[in-house]
Amino acid sequence: MPVDAILEPAAASTDRVRLRHELRDLFEEVADLLDDDRIEEFPGYFTEDCLYKVTSRENYREGLAAGLMFCDGIGMLRDRVLALRETQIYEPRMWRHFISGVHVLQVDGDTVRARANFLVTESLSDAHPSLFLVGQYLDTVVRRDGRWLFQERIAVCDNHHIRRSLIVPV
Amino acid sequence: MPVDAILEPAAASTDRVRLRHELRDLFEEVADLLDDDRIEEFPGYFTEDCLYKVTSRENYREGLAAGLMFCDGIGMLRDRVLALRETQIYEPRMWRHFISGVHVLQVDGDTVRARANFLVTESLSDAHPSLFLVGQYLDTVVRRDGRWLFQERIAVCDNHHIRRSLIVPV
Amino acid sequence: MPVDAILEPAAASTDRVRLRHELRDLFEEVADLLDDDRIEEFPGYFTEDCLYKVTSRENYREGLAAGLMFCDGIGMLRDRVLALRETQIYEPRMWRHFISGVHVLQVDGDTVRARANFLVTESLSDAHPSLFLVGQYLDTVVRRDGRWLFQERIAVCDNHHIRRSLIVPV
Repeated sequence: MPVDAILEPAAASTDRVRLRHELRDLFEEVADLLDDDRIEEFPGYFTEDCLYKVTSRENYREGLAAGLMFCDGIGMLRDRVLALRETQIYEPRMWRHFISGVHVLQVDGDTVRARANFLVTESLSDAHPSLFLVGQYLDTVVRRDGRWLFQERIAVCDNHHIRRSLIVPV
Repeated sequence: MPVDAILEPAAASTDRVRLRHELRDLFEEVADLLDDDRIEEFPGYFTEDCLYKVTSRENYREGLAAGLMFCDGIGMLRDRVLALRETQIYEPRMWRHFISGVHVLQVDGDTVRARANFLVTESLSDAHPSLFLVGQYLDTVVRRDGRWLFQERIAVCDNHHIRRSLIVPV
Repeated sequence: MPVDAILEPAAASTDRVRLRHELRDLFEEVADLLDDDRIEEFPGYFTEDCLYKVTSRENYREGLAAGLMFCDGIGMLRDRVLALRETQIYEPRMWRHFISGVHVLQVDGDTVRARANFLVTESLSDAHPSLFLVGQYLDTVVRRDGRWLFQERIAVCDNHHIRRSLIVPV
């Protein structure tokens, strides 16, 4: 039996797979710019009326305010990034994102809800690498002028106590 | 030279890639339900005559019994899941799966042998996230009524000493 | 609106995605042979005039010599692998690679520049798994007789101080 005989019908499978690929590309592109310390580019991936939050699983489950980062609209996100650049005085360190489990949850016109797992490692110059953050992105993305933009990104961290005050986006 | 001139012939590549994508989807779907604590859905991904084992690399290599979990047939798997739900009294924690290196090893009719790497993090509410389990899935999946089911899943953990008694599927 | 209406034009997207898939396959194939301790096969993935380096982010950024491993040409790489096999006397351990963020940076004829993130775990028989190495592959691959080969692979580790003398390729 040829391999394609045991596969799903090509058309449906291909569209779904392509959409997931495009989202995975988007998520990894954003992860790369954070890892490369090009955070000025970060707001360019969001809509004007975006919502960006970093919160803990516990706060998210109980509907509490995002304890770690909360940006309501692209202006607030741009301010935050600017403030970051001007106040970065901590010890040099590297973060690196690993993304797995990208899933499309819902497609409604040109609006797509999706989720993915993230794992961020931290490396300081004189120490072993360690797990910094682990959790889940809960996203709503929209298609604008041929590009995907985040209308909402909620990064829900599994670890309740973040090791130090989180001052960068995830 | 256009990009497609340096690629493999499209048809063969596409089928192989599609099969791998479908398996990656399957593996991530199962990982998600475990991460989301929806273990009641877990047996629904196995055939009636399935074999599900969690073992260590050392035991696997020497052909010893699976020390961590052994379910021979879907009835045993269902019992195990039921028992888990009724006896879960441990401190709340989150697991999260990261899957990499999905490979198709062999295709024989509608039976496919595959492997993949897994990394599972653990987060307790008052601690940093840590690596819980790292290892390899060795799978035999079959196509039934348009869905992939596990006929055999062996999760071989690299770490011989699991940190605490393992009471959930991997 | 059908899903495909919000996707990129199929042809361009498909070629780019296929190229990235082929590279991801390549990277995971090489990772697997290292994890499986089949290092004799490693040089077979390089061109005759290859460059293989493992270095730290700090050394890479400042243009310093690769501190960890440096092989200029396939002969040097083969020697290194042979030496490894003959002198391996350390405590048994398992490494396992997790790869994320595969990106094509540039396509020039049949030469492709790409990058990817790697995370390597280490498991000793009597200890918990730990993060061993985290970093980035910076690669130049070429198409020869229908296969991709590395003309250059630079593994840039985020962690400056590698826990022990690194004696295997990454």
